[in-house]
Amino acid sequence: MKPIHKIILIGRPIAGVSETVNALYDFLTHRHTEIAVDQDTAQMLSPHHAPIIADSEIFNHFQLIIVVGGDGSLLNAVHLALPYGLPVLGINRGRLGFLTDIHPNNLQKVGDVLDGQYHIEPRFLLEAEIYNDNSDQIHSKNIALNDVVLLPGDVAHMIGFEIYINQQFVCQQRADGLIIATPTGSTAYALSGGGPILHPHLDAVVLVPMFPHTLSSRPIVVSGNSEIELRISSGNIISPHVSCDGQKRLPLQPGGRVKVKKNPKMLSLVHPLDYIYFKTLREKLKWESQLHNQE
Amino acid sequence: MKPIHKIILIGRPIAGVSETVNALYDFLTHRHTEIAVDQDTAQMLSPHHAPIIADSEIFNHFQLIIVVGGDGSLLNAVHLALPYGLPVLGINRGRLGFLTDIHPNNLQKVGDVLDGQYHIEPRFLLEAEIYNDNSDQIHSKNIALNDVVLLPGDVAHMIGFEIYINQQFVCQQRADGLIIATPTGSTAYALSGGGPILHPHLDAVVLVPMFPHTLSSRPIVVSGNSEIELRISSGNIISPHVSCDGQKRLPLQPGGRVKVKKNPKMLSLVHPLDYIYFKTLREKLKWESQLHNQE
Amino acid sequence: MKPIHKIILIGRPIAGVSETVNALYDFLTHRHTEIAVDQDTAQMLSPHHAPIIADSEIFNHFQLIIVVGGDGSLLNAVHLALPYGLPVLGINRGRLGFLTDIHPNNLQKVGDVLDGQYHIEPRFLLEAEIYNDNSDQIHSKNIALNDVVLLPGDVAHMIGFEIYINQQFVCQQRADGLIIATPTGSTAYALSGGGPILHPHLDAVVLVPMFPHTLSSRPIVVSGNSEIELRISSGNIISPHVSCDGQKRLPLQPGGRVKVKKNPKMLSLVHPLDYIYFKTLREKLKWESQLHNQE
Amino acid sequence: MKPIHKIILIGRPIAGVSETVNALYDFLTHRHTEIAVDQDTAQMLSPHHAPIIADSEIFNHFQLIIVVGGDGSLLNAVHLALPYGLPVLGINRGRLGFLTDIHPNNLQKVGDVLDGQYHIEPRFLLEAEIYNDNSDQIHSKNIALNDVVLLPGDVAHMIGFEIYINQQFVCQQRADGLIIATPTGSTAYALSGGGPILHPHLDAVVLVPMFPHTLSSRPIVVSGNSEIELRISSGNIISPHVSCDGQKRLPLQPGGRVKVKKNPKMLSLVHPLDYIYFKTLREKLKWESQLHNQE
Repeated sequence: MKPIHKIILIGRPIAGVSETVNALYDFLTHRHTEIAVDQDTAQMLSPHHAPIIADSEIFNHFQLIIVVGGDGSLLNAVHLALPYGLPVLGINRGRLGFLTDIHPNNLQKVGDVLDGQYHIEPRFLLEAEIYNDNSDQIHSKNIALNDVVLLPGDVAHMIGFEIYINQQFVCQQRADGLIIATPTGSTAYALSGGGPILHPHLDAVVLVPMFPHTLSSRPIVVSGNSEIELRISSGNIISPHVSCDGQKRLPLQPGGRVKVKKNPKMLSLVHPLDYIYFKTLREKLKWESQLHNQE
Repeated sequence: MKPIHKIILIGRPIAGVSETVNALYDFLTHRHTEIAVDQDTAQMLSPHHAPIIADSEIFNHFQLIIVVGGDGSLLNAVHLALPYGLPVLGINRGRLGFLTDIHPNNLQKVGDVLDGQYHIEPRFLLEAEIYNDNSDQIHSKNIALNDVVLLPGDVAHMIGFEIYINQQFVCQQRADGLIIATPTGSTAYALSGGGPILHPHLDAVVLVPMFPHTLSSRPIVVSGNSEIELRISSGNIISPHVSCDGQKRLPLQPGGRVKVKKNPKMLSLVHPLDYIYFKTLREKLKWESQLHNQE
Repeated sequence: MKPIHKIILIGRPIAGVSETVNALYDFLTHRHTEIAVDQDTAQMLSPHHAPIIADSEIFNHFQLIIVVGGDGSLLNAVHLALPYGLPVLGINRGRLGFLTDIHPNNLQKVGDVLDGQYHIEPRFLLEAEIYNDNSDQIHSKNIALNDVVLLPGDVAHMIGFEIYINQQFVCQQRADGLIIATPTGSTAYALSGGGPILHPHLDAVVLVPMFPHTLSSRPIVVSGNSEIELRISSGNIISPHVSCDGQKRLPLQPGGRVKVKKNPKMLSLVHPLDYIYFKTLREKLKWESQLHNQE
Repeated sequence: MKPIHKIILIGRPIAGVSETVNALYDFLTHRHTEIAVDQDTAQMLSPHHAPIIADSEIFNHFQLIIVVGGDGSLLNAVHLALPYGLPVLGINRGRLGFLTDIHPNNLQKVGDVLDGQYHIEPRFLLEAEIYNDNSDQIHSKNIALNDVVLLPGDVAHMIGFEIYINQQFVCQQRADGLIIATPTGSTAYALSGGGPILHPHLDAVVLVPMFPHTLSSRPIVVSGNSEIELRISSGNIISPHVSCDGQKRLPLQPGGRVKVKKNPKMLSLVHPLDYIYFKTLREKLKWESQLHNQE
């Protein structure tokens, strides 16, 4: 692939990041890579000469965003990367992430990536649109790389809602909520909720009911091009929320609706050449370890 | 769609089928539909003039197979239909099936179908090839509309095996077995085993581990074009089997392999125009009924 | 059993209750049963002469509380019944409840119960005590017939906490919360969360993790006499809550603790003589209906 | 507790056992402990003077059985220990077992146990009685420390059966089988099948349905004193089996019955003083490891 000379470096101010950010800054300046940082990251750096990114012009100038942190940090950076079509590379804080492949002790791998030793994996995102009523007026919207989650505003109460897929009625549910996850998100919150693992290259979305009253409810996997609509029963005494990637929350009203469909823009996730999805899966899910030794 | 004038009528000799087969035969002869039957069905019929199908010429002459029975009867008929590309229509025995839509009291719907009031839904099949060793020599093979299932030959023992997808190592398992299901099969055995529902139009396959030792094992959904290979550990003290649609079984040896991939031929499943997948799902899974009434 | 002449009649003002309350009031006055009602129920009644219960003296005078409504209504009435040791009989609103056995069309069964045709089933309750720190000072407390549930104050965030049973460290969890359910509660919220059914006569409590990060987490069943303590990590950025029977909520602080143990008082649940637990279970869980008909 | 001077040493001839058996033999002879071995173990030992146990007199002479191996080896030894009321101590092969606590590198712990530094934990067993018809004639029987499992004789077919608990009808099932597990067995096969963990001191038994057709089937926990009866539908075309601890199998006929209840004799399991159940649970189930790091 094409070598990379201009990067944006982003680290969230959480434990263990600052050290890696500084080491990486030194490593990259030695390589004469051009570096910009965001405000938070600038404060983490020892005296430096990196410009602080601010407007779209600067963004257009760069070729890659490098994120230091956990999967959550990378989820954050997606909102910066997507409008400019910038690919993203993740460096973890010592523990492998599903999205952050590179170990902080192995910065040479970052060098290899900048030398062109990488491949790009496109990952699709969902967009959630909130409607307060039956009109076509969008009240609020957001995007999600992992999942769009319908949650009660007040945790002690069930939500009553209906699910439609491509305008077809699927079922009525009374549940704590519903997770709509991409393949990327299928190994995050949806997995804790009993959802299946979707291979990242699958063009599909999974709906995972949360604590459903109907005991025969099961996760449903549908095409990634489906339009999923949740209609909140007007009889609800609470006002539920929609959460995107567990970060921002959009309020919903009884009688309101959420439409979830694929976002037209894809995230370009950068992996070193030795990245293997199933290897990450095995390590993250501790698949080597087995329960019984009944011999 | 094109009207249909020549059909093959098939009913398995199980309770409740004979009556419907005869009623249908009368209904169709009144309509001057040309009918052939198989050996078993001929014996169920009151005096009749339907030829008994035997060779491929006759098959090529007909336009549709009508199956009377449960989903299992339809699975059987697939082996007849597939080589000739014949579409299949299912009539149940009073209880809705996932594959057998039409109620036996509603034969007028069969008339509507023959008049051209139907649509055709293609469903893909899997093929399983058994290898006794590392050579390329196929020992036996079969096809499956629902699922290919790896089973222990002796139920009291676990099987040790490795899963590969497109030549990539996924994981090692010690389990009672593994279900590899199509979307069609995702609502059959795989669902009892904790697998997700895959929408029939999804080009995907799900791997559902059966009683896995590794508690963090989860169903994995991969592209329908994946080549899945199971390598049976040579250390197994039992000889496992591979079952296709729960019907025929192919023996495997320790050290042997199964390769599972999409069959090039699709089944053409015929539905009346008012068929809606999610309606069948709701009815079969009793999604109307809810657990709590805590008001 | 002893016949019953003096009852307290309670109905919550929800759909379908008022009619049954009035029918029952007429039925009982015909039988010359002495009746008292609570404030809400008085307002539902057509002109009547029933005194409104207010103080403990009146409570001590009565022999039984009859609740009209769903299982939730009965959960409410428990707080009235328990201090006076009054047994409770539940009449549902047309749909069988786990706690409300009698159908509103079958008031003769109420007559049979008052004639002494009943048996009493003791059900134990839990008590939850909240501590804000490591001191022995109880900050707040409540009782629960079904379950004590640890919930995040803010649904988008995980709770980090430790579980201790009888002062022994069990495990650390990061999860959406934890359900601690009695046998009575095992068929309510805990069942939606993947918990097992505990037979009502079992002296046991089940801990069901809610969306746990550790995929090998499983429900744990321990003796009903266990003291369960949850210690909320002081690192939490949210303030979780404890909910008792999904009704009232007690706030918790990071660094705080919840102790859950058996309440010394038992609820006396009254059943007609033909009550069979497993029959209720079969009907509520739709165990007659089966997925496949693969013949 | 009372010091122990006379032990029976048992090791199954599987990988890694022979070395530990010899080391332990040397360790014990140095301590002047009186040792007997079984036939298999004798063949593993370097030249030795240990008598080979044969008849009940010798058994009565000894105070403890020490088993070297996995949990399965200990399950085997239970059949020797139970008739003589001999307590059992388990030494694993390097990997912690639920029943085999002591690491082979830590034989000093065995010394501590023999010095009286131990406690005895009673574990109850189940007994399974097979009846071929409705008569009271027992056709065969066996005992189980972990579980009694109903299995199809032919893995490709479902079993139709009815469950009764204390002569009360619970439900009808069509499933691959049913696991009836003790608390000891709740962390073995039943756990792979979705059953809950039962604390070893709980007097309870769990019924775990295997791949049930009815999707609302759930594990049921009942009193340890329950009599559980499975009645095999006479319509089955296969002859199922009953497996005890996954070892021996008792054949059943369509129309036959299995009765499962607590065995009057308890196993005395010996633990070193520092044994903590929850610690074993945490280690075996990898509860330290967590899925997400979403910061």
